Amino acid sequence: MAKPHRQHCPVARMLNIVGDHWTWLIVREAFYGVSRFSEFERNTGIAKNLLADRLARLVEDGIFEKRDIGERGTRHAYRLTEKGESLHTVLIAMVQWGNDHIYPDGKVPLTIIERASGKPIKRLQLTSHDGAPLSRFDLAVLPGPGAGRAVRQRLSQISEKS
Amino acid sequence: MAKPHRQHCPVARMLNIVGDHWTWLIVREAFYGVSRFSEFERNTGIAKNLLADRLARLVEDGIFEKRDIGERGTRHAYRLTEKGESLHTVLIAMVQWGNDHIYPDGKVPLTIIERASGKPIKRLQLTSHDGAPLSRFDLAVLPGPGAGRAVRQRLSQISEKS
Repeated sequence: MAKPHRQHCPVARMLNIVGDHWTWLIVREAFYGVSRFSEFERNTGIAKNLLADRLARLVEDGIFEKRDIGERGTRHAYRLTEKGESLHTVLIAMVQWGNDHIYPDGKVPLTIIERASGKPIKRLQLTSHDGAPLSRFDLAVLPGPGAGRAVRQRLSQISEKS
Repeated sequence: MAKPHRQHCPVARMLNIVGDHWTWLIVREAFYGVSRFSEFERNTGIAKNLLADRLARLVEDGIFEKRDIGERGTRHAYRLTEKGESLHTVLIAMVQWGNDHIYPDGKVPLTIIERASGKPIKRLQLTSHDGAPLSRFDLAVLPGPGAGRAVRQRLSQISEKS
């Protein structure tokens, strides 16, 4: 994989974990209930050596935990940790974007429903602190409490621009 | 870049567009108002040849439009299309996940606020058709109207599992 991003940006740091061509497909499979090496391999089409590398990194990054299950043939199971589970919002945002913009009307390959009602879930919506829907033009980005000089400088350029 | 994914999955197809180490940083910069080659280069640290390649792909995939602005030195501006603009939900889901899971408490480098109130926006929340909050365990994935045999087969394996 490429050299890790060093910027203090949650997007850049997240890309160090999941920013490659395969990792989201592995994570997708984990959400589908897959836990064995051979199943990840079959369902994504990834090469064995890449899969071994990506799984090791995902364990190291705390997205998966690896358990020795001692079964013949498949000795390990990979399960999402809590940190990994919480990727689901990003994954569903991706599904919704892909369904809207990649598949022509009426041709989406999958629909996400609420089990209880059987009805499709709503599109994710940005909301203000009191729950009012927001568009991206209602937003501003400010330095957080951990922002260093580089981030402050970068964000001040943006506010001059907008 | 790697060979494109062929699976009929909105996540796989989205990864063909934005699933590499740099593309989200370029898209992030576009949301920050950047439109010139040299600014993308400076703010992300990407190599010129990679940036040229990624921008060309983003134009081809309909995320950016490229306009000849005829200025000396910087002849082109890259702007998000509507398809590109609608990536903001995914990007903010990434920011929120990164803020929660990569930066220790109180050390987040940036905060997203609503301009009007100055208050931080809410965390994105999955909701049912009638707006009730859902966890990922409330969800199921069904074949959509465009699902072919492979997708139907894959999803039937999941429902057996869960």
